[in-house]
Amino acid sequence: MPTIAQLDHLATLSRVVRHHILKATTHAGSGHPTSSLSAVELMVGLLFGGFFRYDVDRPDHPNNDRLLFSKGHASPLFYALWLAAGKVSPQEMLTYRKFGSPLEGHPTRRFPYTEAATGSLGQGLAIGLGIAMSARYLANLPYRTYVLLGDSEMAEGSQWEAIEAAAFRRLDNLVAILDVNRLGQRGETMHGWDLEAFGRRFAAFGWETILVDGHDLAQIMAAYAQALTVEGRPVAIIARTVKGKGVAEVEDLEGQHGKPLDDAACARAMASLGAFDLDARGVIAKPADREPARPRVMAEVVPPQYEPGKPVATRTAYGKALARLYPRHPEMVVLDGEVSNSTMAEIFREAYPERFFEMYIAEQNLVGAAQGLATRGHLPFLSSFAAFLTRAHDQIRMSQYSGANLKIVGSHAGVAIGEDGPSQMGLEDLAMFRAMLDSVVLYPADAWATEALVEAAARHRGLVYLRTTRSATPLLYGPDDTFAIGGSKVHPESAQPATVTVVAAGVTLFEAFAAREQLQDDGIAVRIIDLYSVKPIDESSLRQAAAETDAIFTVEDHYPEGGLGEAVRTAVGDAAPVITLAVRRRPCSGTPAELMAYEEISSEAIAARIREFVLAR
Amino acid sequence: MPTIAQLDHLATLSRVVRHHILKATTHAGSGHPTSSLSAVELMVGLLFGGFFRYDVDRPDHPNNDRLLFSKGHASPLFYALWLAAGKVSPQEMLTYRKFGSPLEGHPTRRFPYTEAATGSLGQGLAIGLGIAMSARYLANLPYRTYVLLGDSEMAEGSQWEAIEAAAFRRLDNLVAILDVNRLGQRGETMHGWDLEAFGRRFAAFGWETILVDGHDLAQIMAAYAQALTVEGRPVAIIARTVKGKGVAEVEDLEGQHGKPLDDAACARAMASLGAFDLDARGVIAKPADREPARPRVMAEVVPPQYEPGKPVATRTAYGKALARLYPRHPEMVVLDGEVSNSTMAEIFREAYPERFFEMYIAEQNLVGAAQGLATRGHLPFLSSFAAFLTRAHDQIRMSQYSGANLKIVGSHAGVAIGEDGPSQMGLEDLAMFRAMLDSVVLYPADAWATEALVEAAARHRGLVYLRTTRSATPLLYGPDDTFAIGGSKVHPESAQPATVTVVAAGVTLFEAFAAREQLQDDGIAVRIIDLYSVKPIDESSLRQAAAETDAIFTVEDHYPEGGLGEAVRTAVGDAAPVITLAVRRRPCSGTPAELMAYEEISSEAIAARIREFVLAR
Repeated sequence: MPTIAQLDHLATLSRVVRHHILKATTHAGSGHPTSSLSAVELMVGLLFGGFFRYDVDRPDHPNNDRLLFSKGHASPLFYALWLAAGKVSPQEMLTYRKFGSPLEGHPTRRFPYTEAATGSLGQGLAIGLGIAMSARYLANLPYRTYVLLGDSEMAEGSQWEAIEAAAFRRLDNLVAILDVNRLGQRGETMHGWDLEAFGRRFAAFGWETILVDGHDLAQIMAAYAQALTVEGRPVAIIARTVKGKGVAEVEDLEGQHGKPLDDAACARAMASLGAFDLDARGVIAKPADREPARPRVMAEVVPPQYEPGKPVATRTAYGKALARLYPRHPEMVVLDGEVSNSTMAEIFREAYPERFFEMYIAEQNLVGAAQGLATRGHLPFLSSFAAFLTRAHDQIRMSQYSGANLKIVGSHAGVAIGEDGPSQMGLEDLAMFRAMLDSVVLYPADAWATEALVEAAARHRGLVYLRTTRSATPLLYGPDDTFAIGGSKVHPESAQPATVTVVAAGVTLFEAFAAREQLQDDGIAVRIIDLYSVKPIDESSLRQAAAETDAIFTVEDHYPEGGLGEAVRTAVGDAAPVITLAVRRRPCSGTPAELMAYEEISSEAIAARIREFVLAR
Repeated sequence: MPTIAQLDHLATLSRVVRHHILKATTHAGSGHPTSSLSAVELMVGLLFGGFFRYDVDRPDHPNNDRLLFSKGHASPLFYALWLAAGKVSPQEMLTYRKFGSPLEGHPTRRFPYTEAATGSLGQGLAIGLGIAMSARYLANLPYRTYVLLGDSEMAEGSQWEAIEAAAFRRLDNLVAILDVNRLGQRGETMHGWDLEAFGRRFAAFGWETILVDGHDLAQIMAAYAQALTVEGRPVAIIARTVKGKGVAEVEDLEGQHGKPLDDAACARAMASLGAFDLDARGVIAKPADREPARPRVMAEVVPPQYEPGKPVATRTAYGKALARLYPRHPEMVVLDGEVSNSTMAEIFREAYPERFFEMYIAEQNLVGAAQGLATRGHLPFLSSFAAFLTRAHDQIRMSQYSGANLKIVGSHAGVAIGEDGPSQMGLEDLAMFRAMLDSVVLYPADAWATEALVEAAARHRGLVYLRTTRSATPLLYGPDDTFAIGGSKVHPESAQPATVTVVAAGVTLFEAFAAREQLQDDGIAVRIIDLYSVKPIDESSLRQAAAETDAIFTVEDHYPEGGLGEAVRTAVGDAAPVITLAVRRRPCSGTPAELMAYEEISSEAIAARIREFVLAR
């Protein structure tokens, strides 16, 4: 039971926090004060009530509890809490939303206490899940992860993916705090103040639920104390709150979302907080001091082995590479979305089951949890069909603002998968991943290249996407070939100088080689570039080809926009004509060969287009 | 109560269906027989038990009940059902998965009884929700919508978005049938045969639940009969089934997902079905014959009105255009993801509340429901922040395989939104929508262009994306300007011939005009092209500019990949150098002007780059 003095102190801190929320948002002229005010007591009670354990001078302390604001627009509250902890000055608080300030409109990792950039709703819980998984399964540490949720964002399906996964894994080190302030951006949510509606849903999914008045510090303290005692299931504290709480003019009013008070209203609101010690600061309890479990470093890594002349699918090489490389990258973890026997991540699972996480068919949660694991220093590789990664586009987009160290692998790329038809064909994945800041996009053609590029991905810090192929492809390379991010493999013409260059990657590279054969009788020599690194791109080899040959033909098993063709065109500029062969018709079921022909990305189509070009000159 | 003769007949039809599932998949050498076999009785009972009402000769009959296979990989069952209804011949059944056949690996609209292409899991229920909304709110028809769900796909959050929305809207004309066959692709689901686990979840969300043995036709018939009596809530029939049911060698076995039997095993399995009339066919009950409610056609459409000299945000013009145009497009419906006061769809809502659907913060469901509405002949416009549309990338991707007539509007594009920071900035939306088959991508700069392009979108059949801007922009055009899909507006230089061309759209167009002013003193004349139609693109005007000026500068408030710059480069080829100004640094909070300058897409940055180019010549 908290003492009256303790409750008084927390009440004072709540006023300090409210004061700075109001001041900062009015000063900025934008931001979300009302959404911040509803959760003040919930967060002050957590941080300064003795529950949250965190070394404020060491955000990287492995035993720190973790706090995520899934409702990232409550950033004024987030920053004001750290002000109340003495780690943000009142002056710095006034830089909120200013250019160059770490106190951005929605939290990003520029602010050292942010675990993950949020602001696209419904994403924080999945990241928290990943962090809780790290504590439970990998680091073996007793810290807890707390995630502040908004009631509006409970409509996002991603929440229920994370809720399901956390209950399935019985993660009692994960606590969600649901701020039910009744009002969304443009009006009431579906459930208003019906706490039971939320409670029933959480409970049905297997969570422990605690319903509280979110402005009653004694109730809040009791809820956190109870949460600490729950075993075998995650806990949701579901709180009835008032949007704009503490500012009579806007409390529980529609039309007040994302609106700061004007100067006069702000002054009135600050005055109404009454007399209190504005310099009061709170103390956050210190964490335990346990060493995280370290994965054991094992034997030397053996080199890859492939039988010459025997085709291997790059997806198989992906699985083999993971299992082979793990001893050199013991921080590695592998996640998959219930298709590990297709992506071949199962090869790793079979070798290191304790480092593999089955995330079922929930791609948003797959990416979110992987990001949470990355946050805690692990090296996550995650996989699904390339097509289904579009499901997590928003999570991948947001991860770039956290600088997350994610390795994402999409299998079953393109029409080359054949009979399953368009729903299963990744045809926009290159465009999606290229349009991410500082992303690396790799597309190996054979097993040797895949092995090398999986290793390059593991060594690279940041977002890497690797595209794999369903069917077995011949071995093109050998153990002595090297592959670097940003590189390419130039397969030069034999005797005579090449007339044209064909740039291909993955499955179309083999079509390019076959086309070259077909063109021999026509006396047309062809240079082939294996563009296994689509981003960054080997501008130098491409520009050389543009200078030395008459045209560049790009061939990709992908829609024409945003893929290989546009990447090459951007790299060579106006130095040579670039002719793009890509998937331009609505794909359908059929054999891979039929579909490659139908889409005019087969060897015959390539040869025909080149002949046409040469004749027309 | 069904008679014994009726149950016998249904049992016979179940054998007919099983026979053809086995035969077709073995003949194709791929496909998902085991996932089809588990739902045979559930579907035979529905279609031929007198519950499903459908004029098999008129798939477009407005009173037809609707059936969606959300578990699209059970397509062999889907096709075999229509064979049992006499609408697919045994010969045609053997074209399953063959190139050119309407019987694709996963159902597409090439098969006339498919309501929507499925195969990416967790999408059918949202589309069914949209169809049920059409029946309830718009057409006022008594038909029901049935959606077959797989247990694996219940991990997808999109399911819970649709489940929540259907319960919120009390849609008792929507029935989900959950085929709990325990096994996913690579092993058991989280809940195995725990029907109660699913039941608790559905019930907590407000659905009526009925648990049955999914191979007991009498129980199944009773369940459908009960479902017809439920009022005020949607119904979930949750069925315990056996994957591979009827084929002893594979029943309930792991490792049998997506695997056809070999010829010998198929022969054994078909023999084990016993003696029955392979020519038996079922009768589907006829639907009612009511006329759908027709929206009343109203007064003439008035022309847009904007006060000269007064800036207007294009998002505002979007809302006004919808409200203005509705009388000419009475099939129009408008949906929004809880941000209608930001996207300004609220202008339409205020004018025609009965045609507006609030879909809350659930973008996957927003797109799915809109597609369902489009399926029934409505003209849906849906909106959210451009950034948050990435959440529905997979749904948008799948909609292209249904040829869905969707109009999608993304507001708050680019760094120009300012202080809210990167989580809210749409910076990859052009890339995402360009990489969709036959998509139209529009990006108007002012209110007049927006009005015209919203009308063009309404008239166009197919996917249209329109990007709007947060802040008010000056009026550039007037009532006499026309804007066509595939067009552009060339703003020619004044006296002297232009040295360079600047291609811009939306907010950067105004920067281009300001840059032109700044370059006057340098004696550099500039042609400006307003590329309001990013796809299809006005190749002719761009090629003319490439021929007549020394270089093309593209300026976009978007990442460089897949956006305006690459679109222009693809259009002009090597006819001129194309220099792309785009968002290349990690964005942050700040004023729009600060951020445009920081990203070097401001007028000063444009002018500087052009000066540099001219000097270097």
